[in-house]
Amino acid sequence: MKLADLQTPSLVVERSLLEQNLDVMAQALPGRRLRPHVKAFKTTALARLMAERGHTGFTCATIREVEGMAAAGLGEDLLLANEVLDARRLGAVAATGARVTLAVDSDTTVEAAAAGGVREVVIDVNVGLPRCGCDPDDAGRLADLARSKGLEVRGVMGYEGHVMLVEDPADKLRQTQECMEKLLKASADVGGDLVSAGGTGTYRENTWATEIQAGSYCLMDTAYAAAGLPFAQALTVLARVISTSPQGWAVADLGLKSLGMDHGNPTVPGGLVWFCSDEHTTFSPADDGVFAVGDLVRAQPAHVDPTIALHERMHLVEGDEVLETWPVDLRGW
Amino acid sequence: MKLADLQTPSLVVERSLLEQNLDVMAQALPGRRLRPHVKAFKTTALARLMAERGHTGFTCATIREVEGMAAAGLGEDLLLANEVLDARRLGAVAATGARVTLAVDSDTTVEAAAAGGVREVVIDVNVGLPRCGCDPDDAGRLADLARSKGLEVRGVMGYEGHVMLVEDPADKLRQTQECMEKLLKASADVGGDLVSAGGTGTYRENTWATEIQAGSYCLMDTAYAAAGLPFAQALTVLARVISTSPQGWAVADLGLKSLGMDHGNPTVPGGLVWFCSDEHTTFSPADDGVFAVGDLVRAQPAHVDPTIALHERMHLVEGDEVLETWPVDLRGW
Repeated sequence: MKLADLQTPSLVVERSLLEQNLDVMAQALPGRRLRPHVKAFKTTALARLMAERGHTGFTCATIREVEGMAAAGLGEDLLLANEVLDARRLGAVAATGARVTLAVDSDTTVEAAAAGGVREVVIDVNVGLPRCGCDPDDAGRLADLARSKGLEVRGVMGYEGHVMLVEDPADKLRQTQECMEKLLKASADVGGDLVSAGGTGTYRENTWATEIQAGSYCLMDTAYAAAGLPFAQALTVLARVISTSPQGWAVADLGLKSLGMDHGNPTVPGGLVWFCSDEHTTFSPADDGVFAVGDLVRAQPAHVDPTIALHERMHLVEGDEVLETWPVDLRGW
Repeated sequence: MKLADLQTPSLVVERSLLEQNLDVMAQALPGRRLRPHVKAFKTTALARLMAERGHTGFTCATIREVEGMAAAGLGEDLLLANEVLDARRLGAVAATGARVTLAVDSDTTVEAAAAGGVREVVIDVNVGLPRCGCDPDDAGRLADLARSKGLEVRGVMGYEGHVMLVEDPADKLRQTQECMEKLLKASADVGGDLVSAGGTGTYRENTWATEIQAGSYCLMDTAYAAAGLPFAQALTVLARVISTSPQGWAVADLGLKSLGMDHGNPTVPGGLVWFCSDEHTTFSPADDGVFAVGDLVRAQPAHVDPTIALHERMHLVEGDEVLETWPVDLRGW
């Protein structure tokens, strides 16, 4: 099948760039040093390529991601790096033989883990991003509470999300260190082997965590691409020009329902994007470009994670050739 | 089933508000005066409530929406108000007995309609929004071309999307009139019965079109709610507080993957939203409010259409009672 045979809009992944990204990361953070975050791509076929490179533990953001990874035979060590108040579905996954570890950051979430039949937890520690995670000084107490409920406490996690896109390298390093000092202090109180943290934006800086939770590196987006990372933008949204105007603009059939918009508009190569509607992107040709009805466009989304969540499948391609089609099988909750 | 039994995040529709919205619109634009746009809700169960109120023709934005509506027995008169370059799937739907009308705005899209087995078209006319639609002066020529290919030309459509959220009523009316004068001029050249236009934002002002393509009115969102329309916000995203901080913020389990973000952050009743992440919204209590882990939150999305596209189902509720669960069965392309 050729690229031009695909329904538009469609997610398209350039195989050589994907494999290059996977290889660069596997060299930088081999094996268990990386716990890839599946929320970035929500596709077990892609997770399998990571497992084949030695990363056999994964990070998840939703119960559905845990269920889907286990069902795909990728349940060797799944960390749900998020709080849940009803852990019964996770307990059911663990009962099938998958290893499921759940983040907890409060008495209530510890109790939910125990009540749901989850056996292993990490204490989620707030390291500066105003989101989940307990106060570092409270981590030891929560670990004791968890153990008193019969839970195995594997260690700590803490996400320095606010540092991911810091531009100045020295500043990024300094801020990462400050966050990880909080996490290591909590780790000393909590015990266990795991110090899980980081992401694509800090995978080089964060040398304190025992494992890095990066996911976006494999496909990338325009926001991360601006951060000077050694990863290529492997994901594009394939669209077609469906209308052109004598006044000079063109319209392609991708829009708010095929693009995560929280980081802004997509980038259309050779075009200047004006705005996106539900199923349309209006743009004008850059420089002396010309767009005609029927032209294929490969737009780069500004934010990969929510873009992928909108699609049922992604196509692995090599130039014009469609090699494989993968279901985006970890969507929903 | 109770609201508290629902998995979060979930789409929740308050039945009384939905029915009130449907009734207000059915009174204002009875029967065929309204051609509801299914892109706003992507749910055949909800479309059926509209058909029961006499609106038996529908507007669609994607081929999948046309297929799904026909498969649900709602194919009496489906208008795909968008251009496509491969109309074969639409021809296949028409061959099953559904009535399928396709928008065309260029020689190429006319030819695609004929080649795909579609039998009826409307000429899509640009009335000011820089998106699809031919120049009004070219509409007659395109109609002739379409007829020469054996297509039935039912009339014209033109969407005054840039007028939907104009604040000043007199200005909105004046701009709507300017747009519709272009469309009526094209209609005179094209012939046919249909003059299809408008949306929730101009359903009162647009008295020139023979039918209005409104969809958002049934569920509404915070953007349209600010426009002074007589429709209530019937759709919320149900979420749970999963974490709170001693510094005062709270975190609920809805985020970029459960909310359309192109119009900005959601509104959390009783809270001030700080930011959204993939699966989280961080907010602080407004005034003297207190949020505890486990609390249910019913957030109002800023833009309903792309929010719904992220969900597999929506729940019809009456207060705390879950009455029905509807699949969002028109997603994808």
